[in-house]
Amino acid sequence: MSFQSADTDAVSINTIRVLAADTVAKSNSGHPGAPMGMAPAAHILFSRFVTANPKSSHWINRDRFVLSNGHACVLQYILLHLLGYKVSIDDLKAFRQIGSLTPGHPEAGHTDGIEVTTGPLGQGFANGVGLAIAQAHLGAVYNKDGFDLITNYTYVFTGDGCLMEGVASEAASIAGHLQLGNLIVVYDDNHISIDGDTKIAFTENVEQRFLSYGWQVLHVDDGDTDLEAIYNAIAEGRKEKNKPTIIRLRTTIGYGSKQQGTHGVHGSPLKPDDIQALKTKFGFDAAATFAVPDAVTKAYADAAKRGAVAEFEWNSLFEKYAEKYPKEHAELARRISGELPTGWEKSLPVYTPADPAQASRKLSEIVLQAITPVLPDLLGGSADLTGSNLTRVKNIVDFQPPSTGLGTYAGIYVRYGVREHAMGAIMNGIAAYGGIIPFAGTFLNFVSYAAGAVRLSALSQHQVIWVATHDSIGLGEDGPTHQPIETAIHFRALPNLHFWRPADGNETSAAYYVALKSKKTPSIISLSRQNLPNLEGATIDKAARGGYVLHEVEKEDLTIVSTGSEVSIAVEAAGILEKEGIKTRVVSLPCWGVFDAQDEQYRLSVLRSGAPILSLEAYSTAGWQKYSHEQFGLTGWGASGPYKKLYEKFGITGPNIADIGKKVVEFYKKRGGAVVSPLIKAF
Amino acid sequence: MSFQSADTDAVSINTIRVLAADTVAKSNSGHPGAPMGMAPAAHILFSRFVTANPKSSHWINRDRFVLSNGHACVLQYILLHLLGYKVSIDDLKAFRQIGSLTPGHPEAGHTDGIEVTTGPLGQGFANGVGLAIAQAHLGAVYNKDGFDLITNYTYVFTGDGCLMEGVASEAASIAGHLQLGNLIVVYDDNHISIDGDTKIAFTENVEQRFLSYGWQVLHVDDGDTDLEAIYNAIAEGRKEKNKPTIIRLRTTIGYGSKQQGTHGVHGSPLKPDDIQALKTKFGFDAAATFAVPDAVTKAYADAAKRGAVAEFEWNSLFEKYAEKYPKEHAELARRISGELPTGWEKSLPVYTPADPAQASRKLSEIVLQAITPVLPDLLGGSADLTGSNLTRVKNIVDFQPPSTGLGTYAGIYVRYGVREHAMGAIMNGIAAYGGIIPFAGTFLNFVSYAAGAVRLSALSQHQVIWVATHDSIGLGEDGPTHQPIETAIHFRALPNLHFWRPADGNETSAAYYVALKSKKTPSIISLSRQNLPNLEGATIDKAARGGYVLHEVEKEDLTIVSTGSEVSIAVEAAGILEKEGIKTRVVSLPCWGVFDAQDEQYRLSVLRSGAPILSLEAYSTAGWQKYSHEQFGLTGWGASGPYKKLYEKFGITGPNIADIGKKVVEFYKKRGGAVVSPLIKAF
Repeated sequence: MSFQSADTDAVSINTIRVLAADTVAKSNSGHPGAPMGMAPAAHILFSRFVTANPKSSHWINRDRFVLSNGHACVLQYILLHLLGYKVSIDDLKAFRQIGSLTPGHPEAGHTDGIEVTTGPLGQGFANGVGLAIAQAHLGAVYNKDGFDLITNYTYVFTGDGCLMEGVASEAASIAGHLQLGNLIVVYDDNHISIDGDTKIAFTENVEQRFLSYGWQVLHVDDGDTDLEAIYNAIAEGRKEKNKPTIIRLRTTIGYGSKQQGTHGVHGSPLKPDDIQALKTKFGFDAAATFAVPDAVTKAYADAAKRGAVAEFEWNSLFEKYAEKYPKEHAELARRISGELPTGWEKSLPVYTPADPAQASRKLSEIVLQAITPVLPDLLGGSADLTGSNLTRVKNIVDFQPPSTGLGTYAGIYVRYGVREHAMGAIMNGIAAYGGIIPFAGTFLNFVSYAAGAVRLSALSQHQVIWVATHDSIGLGEDGPTHQPIETAIHFRALPNLHFWRPADGNETSAAYYVALKSKKTPSIISLSRQNLPNLEGATIDKAARGGYVLHEVEKEDLTIVSTGSEVSIAVEAAGILEKEGIKTRVVSLPCWGVFDAQDEQYRLSVLRSGAPILSLEAYSTAGWQKYSHEQFGLTGWGASGPYKKLYEKFGITGPNIADIGKKVVEFYKKRGGAVVSPLIKAF
Repeated sequence: MSFQSADTDAVSINTIRVLAADTVAKSNSGHPGAPMGMAPAAHILFSRFVTANPKSSHWINRDRFVLSNGHACVLQYILLHLLGYKVSIDDLKAFRQIGSLTPGHPEAGHTDGIEVTTGPLGQGFANGVGLAIAQAHLGAVYNKDGFDLITNYTYVFTGDGCLMEGVASEAASIAGHLQLGNLIVVYDDNHISIDGDTKIAFTENVEQRFLSYGWQVLHVDDGDTDLEAIYNAIAEGRKEKNKPTIIRLRTTIGYGSKQQGTHGVHGSPLKPDDIQALKTKFGFDAAATFAVPDAVTKAYADAAKRGAVAEFEWNSLFEKYAEKYPKEHAELARRISGELPTGWEKSLPVYTPADPAQASRKLSEIVLQAITPVLPDLLGGSADLTGSNLTRVKNIVDFQPPSTGLGTYAGIYVRYGVREHAMGAIMNGIAAYGGIIPFAGTFLNFVSYAAGAVRLSALSQHQVIWVATHDSIGLGEDGPTHQPIETAIHFRALPNLHFWRPADGNETSAAYYVALKSKKTPSIISLSRQNLPNLEGATIDKAARGGYVLHEVEKEDLTIVSTGSEVSIAVEAAGILEKEGIKTRVVSLPCWGVFDAQDEQYRLSVLRSGAPILSLEAYSTAGWQKYSHEQFGLTGWGASGPYKKLYEKFGITGPNIADIGKKVVEFYKKRGGAVVSPLIKAF
């Protein structure tokens, strides 16, 4: 570390602190304490280590920075501003205002330079593990002798809150197992959380915990002023290639404020006199706001230049790579661009009704088996349910540290362990890195464990695919603890998430087709344990519209709309009804979100006026009223037993649905008047 | 440990193993491996230590046993049978069949002797922490010199899967902090999970991790045959009064099977020849099934008798307690019975429209402040958001180990730390113990982190209350990472869960009133950050029906139905519309689940036919179609900004809703025909 610049360091750090106080004061809302306490580490990290080009914020080999304690985002916005990202002083002044680039927590895809969305505690930590996995994987696949193309580090700042969250514990354990030497976490050990001193609830030995996970554990006793120690710790973290590093950094929250070291500075603006005193103490003009001394501007311009030069050199290296490894070059360039290889979709399996009935989890496996050879972008996995989820295709290698003898970093299957929440958040990090499409399996019911990560996939527009098997009472004997009831509507109600529930082979192919084409939308593909017949009328093209008429009749008396394993039961019911002269259409609606995005004319042709529409699904009926006049589903919990008996118990059989259908037809006949599509609305 | 009975021990253990193999074979579904591996520990624990009366399974001071790896439930069902609970050999034969007492995973309230519902991994571990907290708390409140009334231990069996889950990590950390000496966990370290050897994903040092949490850590190297070591470890766990204990027990999964030690015995029945060989090896008749030797029957009868004697003595002690401490006796007896004290509800605050507008989180605090003195049953807490959730009433003591100087075990407020999922699962354990009604706060958005625990509260009928503040875009500047969209419908779709969203002071009192009266139903009370006016027409009685007419007019043109912070906006819109001659009713629907349980006539009087019904809520509109013809809500994510500006941005203002209302009225006029209540259905 060069100490010629000691004065610049001090003024830079104090500039960050003063800007943090000014920004939170201007918005009269936000968290000044952690930014002020973490300013020294942030300054050392960005001025000395982080290699990224602010003018080209998507360069693939940039170092990634994650602020897991996202409530401290003022710190990140200030750094982005100083480094020359598209965050201006005016943007800082608009902190936490509608439409600004500086929302209350960092949002990926919203603000230039923000890698992942943080704020919900623990997520960023696990995202960091995902970013590090992505680097290790792409590096292992594409780096060649003399071509160290993918070499970046992932730096994570975290606070006490994140480390208390289970999602971070899960991620830390798997990161240690995976020996991710490219991951460096700086833990802001400021002894303060919202309820006060951490001694009231968080007295574990964090260093020992991370040692138990197999991390390199370092500490800096004076994170407020000992810049050399901060520098050395980060440098040591970079040196350790076979372990992730955590640096416990003892800091004073709100350093410089009259209230430093108390939770009074955690989540409220500093008082005006406190800010004035702070500025005076640090040698700033007490009357000026949002001031950035020239020396600081220059120091950060130098850091930015280091990134720009690095990208320039990298581009040159990548051109040489093109000459020597044209195939790998083309593939990596394509993957970075986010484009899928031409014609990949021709590999998707196509079925006819003559093909044997199979569980849709098995159909999913067939898809994965078929597309894996043409889509190197895929990085699969499961939360310790591989044999049930059928997520691991044959003859592939696991993603493992080579020293384990169990795989390599070029492997394409991650053994996540029983860690659903971390798996979701890690997938977000992998997707955020670029060049990889992560997918992973668990039972649908346990995607709920990862709800916090799933909603951030959707908000952050990460292309993440959940292979959610055992998706209803059809899982049978495991019983109600494992049978989803509320799960479908929970995820259907999330904006920008595609919840697919395919009914057969072609619909399963369609679900994967759309999920893989949707670069900015996560998908949950909900799959059966039990066998499902291939349906007459189902095609990939039709199902790819999210909903379609599976069985058409003119002047119908009834339409039954259904999804997944219940569609064939709807078809059976329609057959029974038709024998009794009740003309019955069947609509399959495997993905509400995709169907809703179709044009109105199409939607109204599928769920048309003229006859009542009855929905059928082995879940809570909540939400189905949007697409149907009448709803049949589960009114309570499932039960433990063989699945066929369960379907009988709950009335989800062809004969019973036919009976229900008759009641519906009679009811609407008796009521009289036009039966209008539920899609026709006043506004 | 007495070794006169060594032969009995061996035959007992082998009986458990053989019964496990028989039971899983009979159902052709289930997990024999862990029961066979854990049989020695289970036998030693139940034959030597557990004090509980099988003929009186609700005795308050019984030792609690939790099988966190619930997929191994055959083990638990066998023990319950041997001990004389209401589980017969025929029940074992009906394992995993519909309607049996032996479902695929243990269900509290379903099977005699099952304390908590397990299977979803990690939950049972955290439930165990809750059970231990409950014991510590009730003991501290009611035990007196010479009257050790509440002294039981909580024993938890756990596998690798549970320990990988974040919810268990969170619970372990807080259990260490709380120094729960009454908690003993036996960790089945069998090196096998579903994906194979744990070395593929779970290589952390578990002992070191638990040391970091402040636990006593013991191990038994040969859990298959070293009964003395097992005995001694449990005994040592009981001796340590100031730390929870974990015993790492090295076992062989499926011990005795030809496939022992492999994941082949984890989740599938043993083959017939394997079972025969097993029986022969253990000296059983290879042709007989479900055999229990007399010596085993007697050994377990002795264990059961120990429990019966203990309860008898306890009852006698409790009678003497009545003489010396009549007030405490009456209170504890009442709490054990689950009855609330007579007249407690008179303490609930009542409001008039003249009372000032307040945030409903503040109204919740006022309720808690008012009822805490009359309801000693309450044990509150927050996931490190006390100042935001307003869950801690004045002048109370925290639940803390006395040695911290921060509180006592008699304290009534738990500092859960930022551990939402564990908080939910711990509350389930506390509720399962009896005598305590747990409540705890976090932001509504982060109740989703605990989704896995919330659904088990509902399935297990645990009375748990979530104080879920900051419940919409009304939280303002924190932005979309913190603003629920999908959350309300997620929880509304859960059977047996009351999701309350009160609109004002009286509705907040009503939510608590019903939540506290609902002994078998968990509640989430969703509360605003922003101020809400007290509404004309709102009363506790009306709101306690879950939905009611807030503002009535005859021959209406429109009804607006709404909840929480949007009800006053609906009232404002109705006022605007009425000035324009459009007669508008307003319905408040604070709890769908409670409303749905009202009689049909009442429900149809609230949401009646004759005019269109428009719903208004600042969430996804998903599900509202059940109660309304038209829906207004959020079509995407929220945003970061001051809340009033957010409501304007998203059109949730009196004038805009009045405009929407006009469109609805015109649309239905134009369409013609009768407007039928959406509640009127065909079946």
